[in-house]
Amino acid sequence: MNVGPGMTTLQLMEEMGKSGVLGAGRLYRATELLAELISDEETTVFLSIAGPMVPGGLRKIIRDLVAGGHVDVIISSGANLTHDLLESFGGSHYREHNETDEQLCQMGMGRIGDIYTKSEDFEVFEKKINTILTEIAGKENQLNIRQFLTEIGNHIQDPESIIHTATEKNVPIFAPGIIDCMLGLQLWMFTQENQLTLDAAGDMSELSDIVYGSKKVATIILGGGLPKHYALASNILTGGVDAAIQVTLDRSEAGSLSGAPLEEAKSWAKAKCGSKLVTVIGDATIIFPMMVAGALDLINKNGSKSD
Amino acid sequence: MNVGPGMTTLQLMEEMGKSGVLGAGRLYRATELLAELISDEETTVFLSIAGPMVPGGLRKIIRDLVAGGHVDVIISSGANLTHDLLESFGGSHYREHNETDEQLCQMGMGRIGDIYTKSEDFEVFEKKINTILTEIAGKENQLNIRQFLTEIGNHIQDPESIIHTATEKNVPIFAPGIIDCMLGLQLWMFTQENQLTLDAAGDMSELSDIVYGSKKVATIILGGGLPKHYALASNILTGGVDAAIQVTLDRSEAGSLSGAPLEEAKSWAKAKCGSKLVTVIGDATIIFPMMVAGALDLINKNGSKSD
Amino acid sequence: MNVGPGMTTLQLMEEMGKSGVLGAGRLYRATELLAELISDEETTVFLSIAGPMVPGGLRKIIRDLVAGGHVDVIISSGANLTHDLLESFGGSHYREHNETDEQLCQMGMGRIGDIYTKSEDFEVFEKKINTILTEIAGKENQLNIRQFLTEIGNHIQDPESIIHTATEKNVPIFAPGIIDCMLGLQLWMFTQENQLTLDAAGDMSELSDIVYGSKKVATIILGGGLPKHYALASNILTGGVDAAIQVTLDRSEAGSLSGAPLEEAKSWAKAKCGSKLVTVIGDATIIFPMMVAGALDLINKNGSKSD
Amino acid sequence: MNVGPGMTTLQLMEEMGKSGVLGAGRLYRATELLAELISDEETTVFLSIAGPMVPGGLRKIIRDLVAGGHVDVIISSGANLTHDLLESFGGSHYREHNETDEQLCQMGMGRIGDIYTKSEDFEVFEKKINTILTEIAGKENQLNIRQFLTEIGNHIQDPESIIHTATEKNVPIFAPGIIDCMLGLQLWMFTQENQLTLDAAGDMSELSDIVYGSKKVATIILGGGLPKHYALASNILTGGVDAAIQVTLDRSEAGSLSGAPLEEAKSWAKAKCGSKLVTVIGDATIIFPMMVAGALDLINKNGSKSD
Repeated sequence: MNVGPGMTTLQLMEEMGKSGVLGAGRLYRATELLAELISDEETTVFLSIAGPMVPGGLRKIIRDLVAGGHVDVIISSGANLTHDLLESFGGSHYREHNETDEQLCQMGMGRIGDIYTKSEDFEVFEKKINTILTEIAGKENQLNIRQFLTEIGNHIQDPESIIHTATEKNVPIFAPGIIDCMLGLQLWMFTQENQLTLDAAGDMSELSDIVYGSKKVATIILGGGLPKHYALASNILTGGVDAAIQVTLDRSEAGSLSGAPLEEAKSWAKAKCGSKLVTVIGDATIIFPMMVAGALDLINKNGSKSD
Repeated sequence: MNVGPGMTTLQLMEEMGKSGVLGAGRLYRATELLAELISDEETTVFLSIAGPMVPGGLRKIIRDLVAGGHVDVIISSGANLTHDLLESFGGSHYREHNETDEQLCQMGMGRIGDIYTKSEDFEVFEKKINTILTEIAGKENQLNIRQFLTEIGNHIQDPESIIHTATEKNVPIFAPGIIDCMLGLQLWMFTQENQLTLDAAGDMSELSDIVYGSKKVATIILGGGLPKHYALASNILTGGVDAAIQVTLDRSEAGSLSGAPLEEAKSWAKAKCGSKLVTVIGDATIIFPMMVAGALDLINKNGSKSD
Repeated sequence: MNVGPGMTTLQLMEEMGKSGVLGAGRLYRATELLAELISDEETTVFLSIAGPMVPGGLRKIIRDLVAGGHVDVIISSGANLTHDLLESFGGSHYREHNETDEQLCQMGMGRIGDIYTKSEDFEVFEKKINTILTEIAGKENQLNIRQFLTEIGNHIQDPESIIHTATEKNVPIFAPGIIDCMLGLQLWMFTQENQLTLDAAGDMSELSDIVYGSKKVATIILGGGLPKHYALASNILTGGVDAAIQVTLDRSEAGSLSGAPLEEAKSWAKAKCGSKLVTVIGDATIIFPMMVAGALDLINKNGSKSD
Repeated sequence: MNVGPGMTTLQLMEEMGKSGVLGAGRLYRATELLAELISDEETTVFLSIAGPMVPGGLRKIIRDLVAGGHVDVIISSGANLTHDLLESFGGSHYREHNETDEQLCQMGMGRIGDIYTKSEDFEVFEKKINTILTEIAGKENQLNIRQFLTEIGNHIQDPESIIHTATEKNVPIFAPGIIDCMLGLQLWMFTQENQLTLDAAGDMSELSDIVYGSKKVATIILGGGLPKHYALASNILTGGVDAAIQVTLDRSEAGSLSGAPLEEAKSWAKAKCGSKLVTVIGDATIIFPMMVAGALDLINKNGSKSD
C-alpha cells in the first residue's frame, strides 16, 4: 500500500484493494460490494444495527443512507432507537469521564464503553415519549412494532432523526426486541394505565411481503444479536439473501450467531448458494464510515466513468 | 496448581482458587459465588441464555438446575427454546460433518459452528408445535410470552425438557425476542389463519413483580444479547441486581452490551453499588459445566462441614 | 452433558466428549490426543510456553510433566524462565492489589494482568543470577542458549523449578528470545565486564538432531509467539510435526502466527499432511490443568483396562 | 460523524475525532499522537513490527516512514525481515487461492491467512542470501544482530526494501528473535560450514545507548510478541517510554503481553508515569495506513496553519 498526501478515503481504500489481503482486502471487497448493492435498483437493502451505533457516532451516516435512498429496510435493537429519540428530544451523548461506575451511578450517568448519558436527558425523554404514546393510543389500540415506530416517526420533527427520516422516506423500521430498552420500558409503564398492545408476531407479514416483493435482497449487518438473526431469517422463505456484509469484533468458536461466519447462513437457506458475503473484523465506528465514504465515492467515480 | 490422579472437579477448581489469578482465579471466584447464590434462600436466581447453549450440550445441566430448585427465572433467546422443543419432539443435534455450507443446505442440514440439525426434525417440530398452538388458541386469544411458554410446557411431557421442567417447578421463562426463531416463525404462520396474539410488553408486569418481591436478585449470564440486557434491565427499578456472573467470549472495546464488563451495569443501576460481579472469559460449554459441578460440590462440602 | 456430585475431572470431560461440539468437544479431543501422545513412546513431545504460564500458576504442572517423563523438549519465552528462577530464589507472585499502574510503579510492583511482582524479589534474583553467571563464565566463554540454561539448572537446587527438573531429566530447554527478559538483561549487563557469548544460531543443530532422531514429534502449544513458531519451524526439515495441540485466546483474522489455525502449518510443512491437530480457544490457566488432569487419568484408566 | 463526497482520509478521521468515542475516538487520538511524535524532533520514534505486516501490504508504508525520517529505530520479528528480502530478491506474495493447506503444501505454497508464498521464491531467497552471507563472513566472524542486518542492507540495492532504506538512513533494525525465520534458518545452515556468530546479547549496548541518548522515546507497536516487549523493555533503564501507540486484535484477559494494555507498562517502568498511551483495537492492515495517512496530512495542515 502507498500512502500519499491529501489522499481521499477512496484512494486509500483502493490501495487496500490492491494489497487485497487480511483486513484491508476484506474492507475493500466489502466497500465494492456495498457500492454495487446501493447502485443496483433491483436489490432491496436491509441494514441491521445492534451495539451502540447511534451513541457511537453513526447516527448521521445511517440517517443519510436512509435519506439518500440507499437503505430500504432497517432492523434495529431497541437501544439504538431509544438513543435516536434521546437526541431528537434534546439529549446528548457525553464523553471524557474518569469516574468509577459507582460514582457515575450517583451522578446519574449511564456508561456505554467510553460514552456517557445523563439521567436528566432520560427524564425529558420520558415526558416527551409519554405525550407521543398518549397521542398514538388516542388513535389505535393495537399495532405492530413497525406501525408503532412509524407513528413515532410521524410525531417527531427532527430531520436528523433516523426514525423520522425513515418515516419520511417510507423505510420501515423493525425492532423485534423493542421491549428491551428505555422506549420499551416507557411503553410498558404507559400500558399499565392505557390500552396499547404491540403484537410481537405482527411484523412478520409485512416483512415477508417485502422479501417476496424483492427481486434481490442484501443485508448490511452492524453488530450481531437479534437484528442480525431477524434480518437473515426473514429471508428464509425465499431461499436466503443474495448478498450480505457484516462488521463485527465477535468471534465464531463458541457458536454464537453474532460471531458466526456469513457462510453458515447458507446452510440454513438464510443466504443463497452463490450469494456474495463479506465479513470485516473490526470496530464498526471505524469500519462503517470508511466503507460508506468509499462506496459512495466509488459510485460517483463509476458513474462519471460511464458518462 | 497441582494436578493429581483421580482429582474431582472441585479439587481441581480449588487448585485454581489457590492460584487465584487470570482465568483460573476468575473461574474459581465465579464458582464460589454461584455456590453462595444457590445456597442463599433470600436470593432469586435468574439464568439468561443466549448463543447455542441447548444445541451445545447444556440442556440437561440447565434442566437439572431448574429441577433442583437452583434457578428461579429463565430469560432465553428464542432459539434455545426451539432447540429444547426440537429434542422433546424426537429431533436431535448432529456432529462430524465435513460438507460445505452449500452442500449442507442441499442435504437439508443447518449448521451452528460444528453442530448440525436436520430439516426433517424441523418438519416434525412444525407438526407438533402446530397441534399445541391449536390447543392453546382454543383456550386463549391473547397471552403474554411467559404465559405462552407455560402453556407449551403444559403440552409436552418430556421430563428432560427445560420448558416442561420449568413449568412443573413454576419457574417462569421469559423470551422477549421469541418471535425471532423457528418457534416464532411457526407462531406467525399459525396466526395468519388463527387468532393468537402475544403481547410484547405484557411480561414486564410479571417480571417487575418478581423483582420487587425478591429480597435479593442475582443473574447468571451465559452469552450476551437480548437475554443479558433484559435480565439486568428488569432490575433497574430496584436499583440493580445484587450479584451477577457472566461467561462470554465477547470483548468490550466496541461497546456492545454482550461484551460489556458487568461493572458498567452499576452506572445504569442495573447492578447495585457493592454488588458481587464476576466475569469469566471463555466458552460456556467448557466453563459452565465446571462451574456448576464445582458449585454443587462446594455446597455439599460446606453443608457437611457445618453438620 | 450431565453433572453429578463428586464427579472427577475426567468424568466431567467425558461428558464434554459425549456432547462433542464447540469448546467442550474440542477440549475433550485435545485431552484424548494429549493422553495418546504422552503414552506413545515413539513420540517426542515438545511443550512451547509463551504468555504468563509460570506466573499464572502452571509452574508445578509443567514441572511435574517434565519430572514424569511426559515432556521431552521445552521451548519457552524468556519471561517464563525468569519467573521460574524468581520463585526458586525465594521470590513470589502476588495478587489482589487495587492500585493504579502508576501507584504500583512507585511501590515497586510490576503487573501482569491481575498478577503482581515485587522489585525486591528481582533484586534478590539479580544477585543470585550474577553469582551463577560468574560461575558459568569461569568454565565457558561461549555457549548455545540451551547449554546456558542447562548450566543454570545445574546451579539451582530447587526441586520445584522447571529449569532444574528439566536439567535433572535431560529435557533440553530452548529459548530463542531469551535476551528479551530480566534474565537476558542481567546476562547483557554481566557481559559488559565479563566474557560470555550466547550463540543465537547455535541451538538449531541440537534441535534438528532431536527432530531427525525422533520417530514422531508432537507439540503442545500454550500461548503463541516465538516459542510456537520455533516449535513448529524446527520440524520443517522432516516435513512437520505429527500432532499438535494449541490453547489460545488469540484469533486468526489479522494473520498473526499466534492466532493462526494449526491447519495453516500444513501448507508450510510444519505439520504433516494427515497430522492430528486440535485447537482449544480459551485461557490456558483453565484449559491446561483440565487437559492434563484428564489426560493422566485417561492413561491410568486405559492402562488398568488393558491389564 | 458526517460522510461527504470526495472526503480526504484526514477529513474522515476528523469526523471520528469529533465523535470521539469507541474505536473511532481511539483511532483519532492515536493519529493525533502519531503526528505529534513524528513532528517532535526531540522524540526518538521506535516502530515494532510483529505479525504479517510486510506480507500484509505495509512494506511500502514502513519503508516510506523510514525514508521520510519519521521512524528512528525498527524492532522487527524475523519473519517481516525475511519477507522484505523475499520481495527484494524478486519474490512476491500471492492471493486468491482456494486450495486446502494439504494441497498448498503439495503445490509448494505456504499460507499466512489469505496470503500465499511460493517455495520457488524461497529457493531464490536461499541462493541470494547465501551469497550475501558469504560476503559478510569474508569480512566479519562475529556480529551483533543489528550489525548483521546493516550488512545485509548494504548488500541489497532495492530502494523499496525496508532493510536497505533503513541502512541508507542509519535507522538501526533490531530483531532479537531473528533466528526464528527463514533468514535465521539459512544463517544456521551457513554456520554449519562457515564461521559467523551472532551475539544474542550484543545489541543491548547499542540499544541502551540510543535510549540514554534520547530526550524522549516513543514507540509505535504493530502486533505484539517479542518486538513489543523488546521495544518497551529497552526503555526500562530510563524509566520508560514517553509515549506509545499500539494496534492489535489481541485481548488482555489471559495476561499475554501482546494483548496487555499499555497502562500495564507503567507498573514496570517501561512507560513513564504521565506518558501518552493509545491503543487501537483492530487489524493493522486497516488501522495503520489510516493512521499514517491521517498523521502526515495533519502535520502538513498544522504546518501550513502556523506559516
